[in-house]
Amino acid sequence: MQENYDKIGEECGVFAIFNNNADYLNSARLTYYGLYALQHRGQESCGITVWNGNEMKTHKGMGLVHEVFDNGNISSLDGNVAIGHVRYSTTGSSKPENAQPIVVKYKKGSLAMAHNGNLVNASELRAKLESMGSIFQSTNDSEVLVQIIARERINSKNTQEAVLKAMDIIKGAYSIVVMTADKLIAARDKQGFRPLCIGKIDDSYVVASETCALDSVKATFLRDIEPGEIVVIDKNGVNSIKDNCGQKHSSCVFEYIYFARTDSIIDNVSVYKARKEAGRQLAKASPVDADMIIGVPDSGLVSAMGFAEESHIPYGDGLVKNRYIGRTFIQPDQKQREDSVNIKLNALRSEVEGKRIVMIDDSIVRGTTSAKLITMLKHAGARQVHMRISSPPFMWPCYFGTDIPSKDQLIACKHSIEEIRQLIGADSLAFLPIDALSKIVEGLGVNGYCDACFSGNYTVDIPKDTEKIKFDKPFLV
Amino acid sequence: MQENYDKIGEECGVFAIFNNNADYLNSARLTYYGLYALQHRGQESCGITVWNGNEMKTHKGMGLVHEVFDNGNISSLDGNVAIGHVRYSTTGSSKPENAQPIVVKYKKGSLAMAHNGNLVNASELRAKLESMGSIFQSTNDSEVLVQIIARERINSKNTQEAVLKAMDIIKGAYSIVVMTADKLIAARDKQGFRPLCIGKIDDSYVVASETCALDSVKATFLRDIEPGEIVVIDKNGVNSIKDNCGQKHSSCVFEYIYFARTDSIIDNVSVYKARKEAGRQLAKASPVDADMIIGVPDSGLVSAMGFAEESHIPYGDGLVKNRYIGRTFIQPDQKQREDSVNIKLNALRSEVEGKRIVMIDDSIVRGTTSAKLITMLKHAGARQVHMRISSPPFMWPCYFGTDIPSKDQLIACKHSIEEIRQLIGADSLAFLPIDALSKIVEGLGVNGYCDACFSGNYTVDIPKDTEKIKFDKPFLV
Amino acid sequence: MQENYDKIGEECGVFAIFNNNADYLNSARLTYYGLYALQHRGQESCGITVWNGNEMKTHKGMGLVHEVFDNGNISSLDGNVAIGHVRYSTTGSSKPENAQPIVVKYKKGSLAMAHNGNLVNASELRAKLESMGSIFQSTNDSEVLVQIIARERINSKNTQEAVLKAMDIIKGAYSIVVMTADKLIAARDKQGFRPLCIGKIDDSYVVASETCALDSVKATFLRDIEPGEIVVIDKNGVNSIKDNCGQKHSSCVFEYIYFARTDSIIDNVSVYKARKEAGRQLAKASPVDADMIIGVPDSGLVSAMGFAEESHIPYGDGLVKNRYIGRTFIQPDQKQREDSVNIKLNALRSEVEGKRIVMIDDSIVRGTTSAKLITMLKHAGARQVHMRISSPPFMWPCYFGTDIPSKDQLIACKHSIEEIRQLIGADSLAFLPIDALSKIVEGLGVNGYCDACFSGNYTVDIPKDTEKIKFDKPFLV
Amino acid sequence: MQENYDKIGEECGVFAIFNNNADYLNSARLTYYGLYALQHRGQESCGITVWNGNEMKTHKGMGLVHEVFDNGNISSLDGNVAIGHVRYSTTGSSKPENAQPIVVKYKKGSLAMAHNGNLVNASELRAKLESMGSIFQSTNDSEVLVQIIARERINSKNTQEAVLKAMDIIKGAYSIVVMTADKLIAARDKQGFRPLCIGKIDDSYVVASETCALDSVKATFLRDIEPGEIVVIDKNGVNSIKDNCGQKHSSCVFEYIYFARTDSIIDNVSVYKARKEAGRQLAKASPVDADMIIGVPDSGLVSAMGFAEESHIPYGDGLVKNRYIGRTFIQPDQKQREDSVNIKLNALRSEVEGKRIVMIDDSIVRGTTSAKLITMLKHAGARQVHMRISSPPFMWPCYFGTDIPSKDQLIACKHSIEEIRQLIGADSLAFLPIDALSKIVEGLGVNGYCDACFSGNYTVDIPKDTEKIKFDKPFLV
Repeated sequence: MQENYDKIGEECGVFAIFNNNADYLNSARLTYYGLYALQHRGQESCGITVWNGNEMKTHKGMGLVHEVFDNGNISSLDGNVAIGHVRYSTTGSSKPENAQPIVVKYKKGSLAMAHNGNLVNASELRAKLESMGSIFQSTNDSEVLVQIIARERINSKNTQEAVLKAMDIIKGAYSIVVMTADKLIAARDKQGFRPLCIGKIDDSYVVASETCALDSVKATFLRDIEPGEIVVIDKNGVNSIKDNCGQKHSSCVFEYIYFARTDSIIDNVSVYKARKEAGRQLAKASPVDADMIIGVPDSGLVSAMGFAEESHIPYGDGLVKNRYIGRTFIQPDQKQREDSVNIKLNALRSEVEGKRIVMIDDSIVRGTTSAKLITMLKHAGARQVHMRISSPPFMWPCYFGTDIPSKDQLIACKHSIEEIRQLIGADSLAFLPIDALSKIVEGLGVNGYCDACFSGNYTVDIPKDTEKIKFDKPFLV
Repeated sequence: MQENYDKIGEECGVFAIFNNNADYLNSARLTYYGLYALQHRGQESCGITVWNGNEMKTHKGMGLVHEVFDNGNISSLDGNVAIGHVRYSTTGSSKPENAQPIVVKYKKGSLAMAHNGNLVNASELRAKLESMGSIFQSTNDSEVLVQIIARERINSKNTQEAVLKAMDIIKGAYSIVVMTADKLIAARDKQGFRPLCIGKIDDSYVVASETCALDSVKATFLRDIEPGEIVVIDKNGVNSIKDNCGQKHSSCVFEYIYFARTDSIIDNVSVYKARKEAGRQLAKASPVDADMIIGVPDSGLVSAMGFAEESHIPYGDGLVKNRYIGRTFIQPDQKQREDSVNIKLNALRSEVEGKRIVMIDDSIVRGTTSAKLITMLKHAGARQVHMRISSPPFMWPCYFGTDIPSKDQLIACKHSIEEIRQLIGADSLAFLPIDALSKIVEGLGVNGYCDACFSGNYTVDIPKDTEKIKFDKPFLV
Repeated sequence: MQENYDKIGEECGVFAIFNNNADYLNSARLTYYGLYALQHRGQESCGITVWNGNEMKTHKGMGLVHEVFDNGNISSLDGNVAIGHVRYSTTGSSKPENAQPIVVKYKKGSLAMAHNGNLVNASELRAKLESMGSIFQSTNDSEVLVQIIARERINSKNTQEAVLKAMDIIKGAYSIVVMTADKLIAARDKQGFRPLCIGKIDDSYVVASETCALDSVKATFLRDIEPGEIVVIDKNGVNSIKDNCGQKHSSCVFEYIYFARTDSIIDNVSVYKARKEAGRQLAKASPVDADMIIGVPDSGLVSAMGFAEESHIPYGDGLVKNRYIGRTFIQPDQKQREDSVNIKLNALRSEVEGKRIVMIDDSIVRGTTSAKLITMLKHAGARQVHMRISSPPFMWPCYFGTDIPSKDQLIACKHSIEEIRQLIGADSLAFLPIDALSKIVEGLGVNGYCDACFSGNYTVDIPKDTEKIKFDKPFLV
Repeated sequence: MQENYDKIGEECGVFAIFNNNADYLNSARLTYYGLYALQHRGQESCGITVWNGNEMKTHKGMGLVHEVFDNGNISSLDGNVAIGHVRYSTTGSSKPENAQPIVVKYKKGSLAMAHNGNLVNASELRAKLESMGSIFQSTNDSEVLVQIIARERINSKNTQEAVLKAMDIIKGAYSIVVMTADKLIAARDKQGFRPLCIGKIDDSYVVASETCALDSVKATFLRDIEPGEIVVIDKNGVNSIKDNCGQKHSSCVFEYIYFARTDSIIDNVSVYKARKEAGRQLAKASPVDADMIIGVPDSGLVSAMGFAEESHIPYGDGLVKNRYIGRTFIQPDQKQREDSVNIKLNALRSEVEGKRIVMIDDSIVRGTTSAKLITMLKHAGARQVHMRISSPPFMWPCYFGTDIPSKDQLIACKHSIEEIRQLIGADSLAFLPIDALSKIVEGLGVNGYCDACFSGNYTVDIPKDTEKIKFDKPFLV
């Protein structure tokens, strides 16, 4: 059973280390732990590339970090510089050739890159490259990005200059880590859609998508990498190129609502606090008279606490999650009555019986899970089930690295809120008002955010033909 | 990384179905879902045996339910009667030949059995059987039990009579399901150490270790099987043999504290409520002035809520669990500074910083995890960390189906509470008083319980040589 | 693709070592090499059990020796005494629980056994054991044999005495190796149906089904174990019990014709020489005017050489075998024209074109392969294809450890030789005369043989109900 | 155990089908059978790409054909055009990214290619491409070749024109199959180092490295593709571009001696006949008085027959091969006396005892196996062992697609023939004279051949820095 089959497809995560303590730190192993901590950002494939002073070695494959790596292959990845990647999971086009890091040989030697984000002008750039004779071995935009960096490198004095020039060519969302012989480069797009931060272990440096990955290797958080910034790490330390900084930020608000781990801090704002604040705002905007506030495990729990605090209605557990759900769950037959939601979650009869429940979830995509949970709670004796969603309804496509389904699959595009309420069988239903978003991110300190999936306000121009030219899938990495 | 390496080894779980609706229910598939729901009772191995009116078919193997079964092998298990088993996980003696159900051929045809519990006189019985020429292919007591049933069957008019006679020979803890051609028998030892309940789907019957497994297949809970009761299910319905009922019950109190799933109801008592009550009793017995009550995920969370309610100190999240931990986690090198607790759990700095924390866990075995979590919380800024344990200290071995480590591994056998407090670095430490146990089980309605692991008061006689005669491991199933 | 899908199912092979040179010999590893050399005797499953002075350790599984064993599991099998087994391959009832060695615990400790052969009175013995309360976990006769040895052991002064007594109870074919604490016992049935020999490496002893396995570990061949003999090996050396020796021998003639490896010497006769002699006898009995003698690779090649020598017609290659055929060959679709025989073998057009060919094979079971090979040769330009079979037609079931299909699958039971010739499209067809068998075994020195599968002359009484009582399969080990 | 660890590393094999009978032929399945027949040309990896009228689908992986493909993945490869590849096996640099077919997207859509051979100017071409900004994802020369075709395609009117232009740029050995939307192109280098032929099934066309692959799918052999020829196959039939034909041929003589399968016919000459002729020439050049001629299975057997015919000394079997040798053979410990040659081959004592033996092998690389076999034969009683090699000594590197070890590993580069004789313990030793090569290929009809590995006479210029510029391995495909 897919972990979150009625959720927005997650993105990717990157991790990198420049290790100056090779006597007691092991780069590949630390990267393994870092990817473990970033696993929520992608479960389809993962990989690690190391530079051992002489050559690059890569191991990557389909599956979770603990499935792809074992002591044997981790041990073979010797080297003091390493980058790693986890890739998001969708059912359709899972192709081994899309696993990252992408490693290439070019005029200047070897280069490895891991990429979180999505270029909005990749189709256009790809067409241009092809007309000059370029060939591509995958359909994702990371290969476009690497080719552009490689070409710019020809007439640049070093790789960071090539990255700087590439940033004027590519548009969209990207947090990347690039490794060349003895050098690590990390860069974040000018709007800063996707998070990227830097930390330190003694005199070694670590770059990661989220701070939770720094914690997993006991690195000290130094700072977020700024939107537009290029950070260059080598044995002489850390240098920064800020020529592209200064634009208005567009931190993805959905990182705070759902994507990121609650123990991460992104652009100075605690994801946990943002999520709790979302619950509070939701309680303010759509209060309801009830006996208990519950969250849908795991992603709705924190907002439920916030809702409870604001509403002064007791917080409690109403649903129990089976923590042994694997990825190869055998689906029930059509004719059978049990279903996978039932296997994954169960109502706590002793807690919900006779009560008026408010159930908080972070989002509704298709609505199928919500309907089943409400039925389950009522079957367990809940008198009322009021549904509250800690984000606004999804109405627009995302071009910046998340996998929002097409409009005909989004329940909010096809139905009014009242219709949705009826479809899922809730006694009442409310979403977070779109204007409350600023309170849960900017209110806590984020300097500009993107809410285009809810509002349609895109902070960069989307090429008109983006939809049409896309290859076999949107460029998601 | 083992999920709970500093926890008491879990036991086993059983599931069975007698399916009278073969047109739309699939016995093997329902058993699969049932075992999925019981996975917390055993992660080492699992298996399903079906009777298809003609022969028994079995698939079993090492690993989790989702690893051992796939659509192919589940589909090949056709039949309307099925039994299944999940076996506990320890690192040492994981042997394929111990996987259950155990299936044998004997004078009366085929018989399959799945067993949760532990016989205290298995060594003695085994020696007796061997002196009559019996051979054994495993070291576990289930094989002893099956041989006794098979022998008693020779001079009995049916299998239930053989089980009834066997119950006068065997001593200790057992909840078993037995399948013969077209018949299902479920039996529970006279003291009722391990849970066993029966449910219904239309006119089909389901037996399971816990009610959460009934819920997973949308069966309606009928009742607990009584201590000493034998339930016989065939196409004519359900019959009960209660000749062995009537003794004082000895429900395992640790089922309520840790083993069972919170959404299960055992002997009329909600595990969730018992666990919350344990938190309340703990707060009454060992109050502490603090700013926030947190639980160690996942097993300490409910008691933490109870502690918070009783103490009127706010409940909050202080630790975040990585929900992607696999079983083949690569252990860190000795010389590396990160460790697996760090990968599994992370402190929520934004919540704990500057606060006096009360951290609730359900038990302390070796104390190693507790020490690491306290260090982690303090590193994240907690001013104080007070540890409260929702059970008394483990002091005595369990002979009834749980895997308590030897005394020299139990921290409470070697150290005073004050010494433990110092070892784990807590600002204060308290355990649940042993006399509070009756409040959290009998107080809620359980009719007699076993707390021998805490008190040394064994409710059945333990043969003097149990320790010595044991083969290569205690008889744990 | 099954290696020899139109061949008689092969039997099993056993290997054992009592190692007195543990400083430089590794028992499990030598057993691995021995089983490798015996792989032709069974491809379904294999296993090794070692005694390390303290306990027995076993690793067994489905598949070929190189699939089941790797450095890891071989290394974990420490111990100076070891026994191993390869089990034959059939498509139907391949069950993991039938893999050997069978290891049991009984009154006197642990006992492991590996068995090649088939008891003819196993059903009867099993019924008797069951009526005394015995249970069985498999359907094969080895478990019956072990139970009988275990029971006899109760009132015997040692295990060899128990084996001696068991030999008066069991009837049929068996070559067994038995391991107990610090002792190895090898025994062969009174008629000596299946081979068993003993060899030496310095002061260590090796027992194996065939001499080729002795060669593989560079052991010096000492002698065949006599029919009826029990050999006991311990640290004091080798002892022999010959109380059961002296009956007329019944060496399986088909070991010489097909089963055994050509480099083995069984009961003093070279399999290679016997096979070549079969070709000579065939040429004498059924000469044919032709241009070239070819054999069907690999089993027909030696007899083809013998035929060529006798007939003075040149020996040559007419068919080339693909040496990369794996066991998981994807079968062609029904509607496709190529087939698996075509993939496995190809005609050598340059050699056969325009020629009159005599093609030698060791046997015909269903005749399907023969027909395809004749078509293939004719398609490649052969003017005539005369088929000669180096054994008589199969007409009777074998109760002694080989898997001859039922009569309705044996082409020779349903058709005259002329009909078979027409069915397979040969220009002429002849089988080895049944009376020539004595020349190819006794003529070379074998002292009595069994040819019941060709003649119906069984050298032990077959219980009347053997066919009927058999469980789900004949007792083949 | 590697199948031929003391042999020259084999090359690659290609297969392709343009299927006009999609109603009853299955392209991927036929390609699977074709690759099965070509497995001897490469065991490291394999792959198949199909065009289904809409998109290309590829499955490839490390391992043998029967390991990489199963019914599931073969079934998913729907499409009427298919190409396939098997890649050679060496121990060192087996990298998944080197598996073929290589599939790229470029300006004109999708293109897939499979390649057997080696470009001598790949380094030079690669440097040129890199200086124009090209990136490479592997280290093999096939990626260079694809990039050149893709670039030439920009200004060509179709893909065959691009291939034609590419053939003026690339130098060395290549037999390629290229697939684009609805078109199949096969091309062979101007010297024709590597074989390539075309066959027919009704109105469908098949291209393969060797005729044995045509036989495996029951295709009728049409003809060899000429050196320099480009064959274009589409739904309108077959067209040929011969602009590059007409140079002197350089068929690799070692294809006849060892690489190719004996049932293949290359450039009109039967490999079997060539191999037999080599034996005859060897007997003429280096006769010896002996009792029996034997071959080292399997590759020395045919030459041994030729030697026997010429010398009138009887041909016989002296060594028996274990036909169950797997690729994961566990190597013996250093201190153990048995070794892997012993497991793989055994002497036939009954045949060799007391005889003077001539043992024929096709080549000597390191000499280690030869020494062990001679010891084995003498241990089995052979009075004398005379070694005869059916090729001249390896003295020079091959730049055309075979993996000849470095000079310091070639025994013939370091020792005189007399020294080698002593090292391997032969009573006499002789190689095929270099001038006899023409008799075994040209004598049978081949029109020009390459024997550079023996003579140093390279038929194309080798760039001076070929050795130096090579990346991490010679360009072997």
